[in-house]
Amino acid sequence: MATNGVKNMGNDAYEDVKRILGDASRLESLSGLAGWDELVIMPSGEGAAKARGAALATLAGVIHEMKTSEALGKALGDAECHGAKDVANLRLARDAYAKATRVPNEMVRRMAEVHSRGYQDWVKARAASDFSMFAPVLKESLELTKARCALVAPGKDAFDAALDDYERGMTKARLNEIFPVVRDAIAPLIRRVYEKKTPTALVGVKNPLEGEFDVDLQAKMSKEIAIKLGFDMSKGRLDVSVHPFTGGCGPNDVRMTTRYKANDLAEGLTGTIHETGHSLYEQGRCEEFIGQPVSEAHSMGVHESQSLLWERMVALSKPFSHFLLRELQATFPAEFDGVSADTLYAAMNTVKNPSTIRVESDELTYPLHIFLRTELELGLMDGSIAIDDLPAKWNEKMKAYLGVDITDDAKGVLQDVHWSSGALPGYFPTYTLGSMYAVQIYNTAHKQIADLDAKIEKGEFAELREWLRVNVHVVGSECESADELLTRVTGKPLDAQEYIDYLTNKYTELYGL
Amino acid sequence: MATNGVKNMGNDAYEDVKRILGDASRLESLSGLAGWDELVIMPSGEGAAKARGAALATLAGVIHEMKTSEALGKALGDAECHGAKDVANLRLARDAYAKATRVPNEMVRRMAEVHSRGYQDWVKARAASDFSMFAPVLKESLELTKARCALVAPGKDAFDAALDDYERGMTKARLNEIFPVVRDAIAPLIRRVYEKKTPTALVGVKNPLEGEFDVDLQAKMSKEIAIKLGFDMSKGRLDVSVHPFTGGCGPNDVRMTTRYKANDLAEGLTGTIHETGHSLYEQGRCEEFIGQPVSEAHSMGVHESQSLLWERMVALSKPFSHFLLRELQATFPAEFDGVSADTLYAAMNTVKNPSTIRVESDELTYPLHIFLRTELELGLMDGSIAIDDLPAKWNEKMKAYLGVDITDDAKGVLQDVHWSSGALPGYFPTYTLGSMYAVQIYNTAHKQIADLDAKIEKGEFAELREWLRVNVHVVGSECESADELLTRVTGKPLDAQEYIDYLTNKYTELYGL
Repeated sequence: MATNGVKNMGNDAYEDVKRILGDASRLESLSGLAGWDELVIMPSGEGAAKARGAALATLAGVIHEMKTSEALGKALGDAECHGAKDVANLRLARDAYAKATRVPNEMVRRMAEVHSRGYQDWVKARAASDFSMFAPVLKESLELTKARCALVAPGKDAFDAALDDYERGMTKARLNEIFPVVRDAIAPLIRRVYEKKTPTALVGVKNPLEGEFDVDLQAKMSKEIAIKLGFDMSKGRLDVSVHPFTGGCGPNDVRMTTRYKANDLAEGLTGTIHETGHSLYEQGRCEEFIGQPVSEAHSMGVHESQSLLWERMVALSKPFSHFLLRELQATFPAEFDGVSADTLYAAMNTVKNPSTIRVESDELTYPLHIFLRTELELGLMDGSIAIDDLPAKWNEKMKAYLGVDITDDAKGVLQDVHWSSGALPGYFPTYTLGSMYAVQIYNTAHKQIADLDAKIEKGEFAELREWLRVNVHVVGSECESADELLTRVTGKPLDAQEYIDYLTNKYTELYGL
Repeated sequence: MATNGVKNMGNDAYEDVKRILGDASRLESLSGLAGWDELVIMPSGEGAAKARGAALATLAGVIHEMKTSEALGKALGDAECHGAKDVANLRLARDAYAKATRVPNEMVRRMAEVHSRGYQDWVKARAASDFSMFAPVLKESLELTKARCALVAPGKDAFDAALDDYERGMTKARLNEIFPVVRDAIAPLIRRVYEKKTPTALVGVKNPLEGEFDVDLQAKMSKEIAIKLGFDMSKGRLDVSVHPFTGGCGPNDVRMTTRYKANDLAEGLTGTIHETGHSLYEQGRCEEFIGQPVSEAHSMGVHESQSLLWERMVALSKPFSHFLLRELQATFPAEFDGVSADTLYAAMNTVKNPSTIRVESDELTYPLHIFLRTELELGLMDGSIAIDDLPAKWNEKMKAYLGVDITDDAKGVLQDVHWSSGALPGYFPTYTLGSMYAVQIYNTAHKQIADLDAKIEKGEFAELREWLRVNVHVVGSECESADELLTRVTGKPLDAQEYIDYLTNKYTELYGL
């Protein structure tokens, strides 16, 4: 047991850790503000964009110096603390420091250069619909990723090391247990849905979501719904941007954006609710540990679970369609007069056919887009797939899983920007992990909150929101993996069967399979 | 003469200076953004304000470290450069470094504490209208200022040292040459105006500016006018805030704000034009030296000269009233139908009577509010006035210069926030210096630009704006004093007589004296 003197030294060192990380986090909040501003309201001139880019790069350099400083390293080495939250915080801080300091600056610079060139080459390759123009830089990028993984997690499988950046604690062994089972259950379900073509409640009925809807009225209604779900406008903003996102300056100033199209009422609405889910997570983070890693979201997958829980489990549910119908009838009375909640529910849940583009796909076909990408990423990392073979493999899997013929790289393997900028591997799997977490978490909430369906039907969301706050939001990064978090919240690790059952039951009923 | 080797070393050191100052400036642009955001669009919650304050304090610490770093000191010592702009830049950088490093951190902290307490005590004292509640902290603050002046400019008069922070190169000797002469010329002019009561053109005529005007229409018109004057919306924004200001992230992203009141059309309009003047200065700064001190505005007084040149010399002029009348008639047709340009001109230039509050006063009485404050500041610094005597001295001078009886500290010596937060002495004089510079610069522009009145009447402002850009904006901080800048632009240093003549002629005609 340490003497008092040593113990105090350990405490003091831990205070130093918290102070340095707090400073870095405060600077990151300004980076978040500047990034939001750039995408939402910055003047359009080239000079403004150039100056902002330079300022953000300078700030990033300052933050990187703080996070890799000898002072932090020394304090981390000496620090001691007690209490689960503090212990988790120190563990996360040590992991992050190790990761950051194991990569030499020369490699960081090289990666930035290759990813920037990767983006440019991808833009050109997609415009020409020619994967071979993108392949060389993708090879460079992949080799760099492997080299970085070997440094940050020596002895660990490279895919696992990369995945850990996006989904802490997840491994390819777990992915291989889960994804193929779900894929093999959903692919045939999709084929049956495609055979039916139309949800039962929409057969011979006009789809009430088709038509033109004033975007200002859409924005007003969406904002009101976000507030009803619990978005706190005194701790955030809702604005419009080209691509919806949630960012800002931390839990007390969360900035989400959305977009509205006159001819796509559902997109603006579900987009706003999706970002509201992300925002509720951010606004609900543990106040006492703000600025410390343990207060941050566990992972991308868990973040996505919060957006998807509200978007899919709540907003695409039957009870919500009663609430939503009242909102729509108040905002667009002529268009929604006489529409039933069942019709609205069916309209909100119609499956896209064919589904070729990930970002335009729906709840049912989306996971297959992800499984395809994950399988390719696994193959690229273990060497069983060569980069030059990607287009052929892509098209083969699209045919097998979604029955689609891809004849065009631009609409196939080149459709996503992510791989071009270094998010390979490990980024894509988090989407579907998030949707599975969402189902499992919501199922538990549904058991523990009395009459949840009736409450949602009435527009009463406070109890669910508080339940999520206590069980997920304030927990932050305390757990070592999403499986640990799920076990704590739902009593077991990720169980793919709950997700399969949810989709099977929902679409069997909707399409009368 | 240095050998080539030494010369290159000097050049390299100068490049280091520019790099470090450039980094600091880029971080300052983010501070400018966060400050703007805080005042204009940040969520209203207390948590957001607290987090922003902490983040800005952390960033300020980082910037201060950069600007007082040994690396910068070393580079400044070794640097060599050629060319007027670079030589001025290095001189400014060395001055700023000396000022920043001569004040110990302990004194910086003490000043922050005293100024913060000063603000709090001032708020309480003003609420109670009791100067004695504010006097103790003001004494502390003044002693600290004197101590700081002795450190930053050893051997220099303390008032001059403090004034230099606001108005580089100005001295109390110059103020004493200028201010009393102007005061003694304008005070009697004001008395004659007060006797007349109303401008000739408004006698028996309805004042067209009185009434209620839709604020959205005001905002639309003001924005259009700002753009016509030359505000580049691709390099800036115009928004609404409680107190109008110009800030933002540098020349490529200048953010100005204004406010509109339904019952005060003139305030919103002249406020927007005032901030447009500040913004044109910022947007016109020397692109090649952005991030370097030489590209920055020369001083507060010169900055104010640019806002006041557009607000007063242009927007309050007869030619402009023709242009403005067309804008008003297009925006508020019912209200301005049948109004003449002469009537509008008289309405825009009516002198307030009585004038007791500086921020509510007009072009003619404003300088007397400044002279009064400057005389008190001079007396406080040389010891001829005691802090406890301030209220009596204030009231005595108000009576002498503006014929007003002040019976209430809140509306007298406690009316301004500035002294409470350390802006004593040297801040207030810059307002009237700015208005004098504006007259002298405009008189020269008027001689050098053919048919300027006719162009303004037609709404053609480009030539004047470009003239100011070349003669003032891109010059930045090249000159050692405003007198040097004025000599370059107008052929002579500040000449108070031009200001006296401008006011005398204008108000003699307006009021038929």
